[in-house]
Amino acid sequence: MLNIPDSKYKRIVIIGAGFAGLNLAKQLRNKPYQVVLLDRNNFHQFQPLFYQVAMAGLEPSSITFPLRKIFQSCNNVLIRVAELEGISPDTKRIQTNQGEIYYDHLVLAMGATTNFFGNENIKQHAFPLKSVSESLALRNSIFEDYEFALLEEDYQRRQGFIDIVIVGGGPTGVELAGALAEMKSHILPKDYKELDSAEVDIYLVQGADRLLKGMSNKAGDAAKKYLESMGVNLIFNTYVVDCDGTHATLKGGEKIHANKVIWAAGITCYKIPGLPEDCYERGNRIKVNAKLGIEAYPDISVLGDQAYTTEEAFPQGHPQVAQVAIQQGKYLAKQFLKPSTASFKYKDLGSMATIGRNKAVVDLPNVKFKGFFAWLLWLFVHIRSLIGRKNKLFVFINWMWNYVTYDQSLRLIIKPANRSSQSKKGTEV
Amino acid sequence: MLNIPDSKYKRIVIIGAGFAGLNLAKQLRNKPYQVVLLDRNNFHQFQPLFYQVAMAGLEPSSITFPLRKIFQSCNNVLIRVAELEGISPDTKRIQTNQGEIYYDHLVLAMGATTNFFGNENIKQHAFPLKSVSESLALRNSIFEDYEFALLEEDYQRRQGFIDIVIVGGGPTGVELAGALAEMKSHILPKDYKELDSAEVDIYLVQGADRLLKGMSNKAGDAAKKYLESMGVNLIFNTYVVDCDGTHATLKGGEKIHANKVIWAAGITCYKIPGLPEDCYERGNRIKVNAKLGIEAYPDISVLGDQAYTTEEAFPQGHPQVAQVAIQQGKYLAKQFLKPSTASFKYKDLGSMATIGRNKAVVDLPNVKFKGFFAWLLWLFVHIRSLIGRKNKLFVFINWMWNYVTYDQSLRLIIKPANRSSQSKKGTEV
Repeated sequence: MLNIPDSKYKRIVIIGAGFAGLNLAKQLRNKPYQVVLLDRNNFHQFQPLFYQVAMAGLEPSSITFPLRKIFQSCNNVLIRVAELEGISPDTKRIQTNQGEIYYDHLVLAMGATTNFFGNENIKQHAFPLKSVSESLALRNSIFEDYEFALLEEDYQRRQGFIDIVIVGGGPTGVELAGALAEMKSHILPKDYKELDSAEVDIYLVQGADRLLKGMSNKAGDAAKKYLESMGVNLIFNTYVVDCDGTHATLKGGEKIHANKVIWAAGITCYKIPGLPEDCYERGNRIKVNAKLGIEAYPDISVLGDQAYTTEEAFPQGHPQVAQVAIQQGKYLAKQFLKPSTASFKYKDLGSMATIGRNKAVVDLPNVKFKGFFAWLLWLFVHIRSLIGRKNKLFVFINWMWNYVTYDQSLRLIIKPANRSSQSKKGTEV
Repeated sequence: MLNIPDSKYKRIVIIGAGFAGLNLAKQLRNKPYQVVLLDRNNFHQFQPLFYQVAMAGLEPSSITFPLRKIFQSCNNVLIRVAELEGISPDTKRIQTNQGEIYYDHLVLAMGATTNFFGNENIKQHAFPLKSVSESLALRNSIFEDYEFALLEEDYQRRQGFIDIVIVGGGPTGVELAGALAEMKSHILPKDYKELDSAEVDIYLVQGADRLLKGMSNKAGDAAKKYLESMGVNLIFNTYVVDCDGTHATLKGGEKIHANKVIWAAGITCYKIPGLPEDCYERGNRIKVNAKLGIEAYPDISVLGDQAYTTEEAFPQGHPQVAQVAIQQGKYLAKQFLKPSTASFKYKDLGSMATIGRNKAVVDLPNVKFKGFFAWLLWLFVHIRSLIGRKNKLFVFINWMWNYVTYDQSLRLIIKPANRSSQSKKGTEV
């Protein structure tokens, strides 16, 4: 049972506490609505820094924040850890794994998940990076495989443990490749003297003819030069069509011997039982009007990665990035608090990616630059965007520490013992 | 394969990188021995603060430290992540899950594990707290159960989720009970306004007639008063004889309705295939002589919790605490570097336990005290003992933050996605 008490206020149910859902819910704190915020986790996660968790540069707790702490100061936002299983738009109810609930207004802000393009092998063997849990799994696997490499006498098998293929040349792929290259040059020679770090090969496979397609040519070229100078093997204009836990197979049939394939090649949205097929656009995004509502269901809005809407400047839909989600969350909050006829207008604040120490690329609306100042701006913007003063402080200290020492102390293979949710089972008996 | 290269130096194999094994290995850095340090984890863990990880007061990374980073500066210490499976003392070889290896001298420093006294129900349902992984599992379960409680309409079942039974009145049990009581009064009313925190019952079941049997009567009495004032239900002179995931059963047959039972009631050491039965003392500790060697096997030493040796002041054996392990590790290192006839002598530096904010008990050799200054001393000693300057800094900031705000931001239910060790499997195919 979701166990939501009756209220004299209208009930807004928000699915997902990512950038869009969280910003909407925050604006509705202590306002005359009953807000029910559902997420599968009890925390908000800061996606732009997942790759740093995976590379043991930051702790999960530094880039996540407990939802309940964000809403301590208000009584009208009810948080439930639950997963959406379906919608009945005609009766205005949703089904979740914890029961059914009525809504006056439903907001879908579920984000997107990894797109494996229907390839079951890749889904089973490759490592995605769309949650802090997946980032931790990748971190554990990287360091487990270095340990396995030490135990392996056979040269070929050892290479399989230490070589890594990254698929996708967007920000995640580029940032991962840079971080791995830095680990190869600064960490491996100290931690794994018995391995020859020169033998560690990092491949980045990009379907297009350049990196960072969402950014300027200048940024893409700079990222290419940075990564090449750091020893990353860049492969353009090709796809990874298969992987089996020991090899990645390229479109032309060529195989790369690497047990670990990191999949940052695309995203897709969730299909929701109960929504008619004609609601969906490319990538399962849901078509909405200029006020972010589904045309056929005036009581359902969609935000962020999951929403598909166009404006003059974005005829192909908005990019699926944090800024769009944040601005849409705030826009919808305004519509609830002070309804107007204004359409949603996305204000592009620019985009950036970091490749490594002193190496970043920044596209602002009026200027594009790279190098040390781009890197500084990247640090500043990301620290500023984190939730929680302690998180900001800890990330700042971590980054400064890393900058001075070239060496974090987070290379820990830690997994919770297999015990949790025991008592739940106990109760069900 | 453990893949240890040949060396012109004698090979010391150390099993376990806890306080004893780690301190021994550290003293042997860059000395004329080949040191092979085996542990099941790639990190050292600081046991005295496990309970703070479980109570979301500290992050696992703050109280653990990567072994490879500790030994970056030396070439003679080889680290392998492996588990001991047996010893062949006659041929001086050990078997591990990663293969066999020869030793010139073997040091067993494996610590101890939870003693469930042969009760399979308790082993299956209760939560132990002897590793950082188990601490995380407990943390996840506590916060999952608060979330489940919100979803539960039935009063009795809801109580099952929020009430907790702690078994064992030693330092771990006392510190856990205090931390839970503080969470009940400072966190629950803010994070879970929908629950009545007054309904949360915390039980501490102790077999003896007082708490902290390893410390003075004065300390035990003070701990009792502190916990009573914080609302913990203390039950003396009885045992928990069973638990099934919904109830804990006491010796007299009385049942406490609580899904979660935390088991801090005793420890036992590991039995090692290949060591004759007559090597073992009570609790599977291994009998050693005054120089920490097994009498029948002069090439095997035992340290820390796993060792059983007596001196005049400790006719029942040394207490199984960190200080003994540290001093034994350092003693044995001296014997390797500059052999002498000196027996191991334990210098008791005192003991302490913290119950909560401004509440701790300290037994020093010459003075026993409690309260704010005991608490300050506890903080100071524990920060000083942590490995790594960044860990010291982060723990300090965390504790100060908590002291000022009464509120951490670590109440996160995070589990690595179920993906790691995939590539290992891939290779085995």
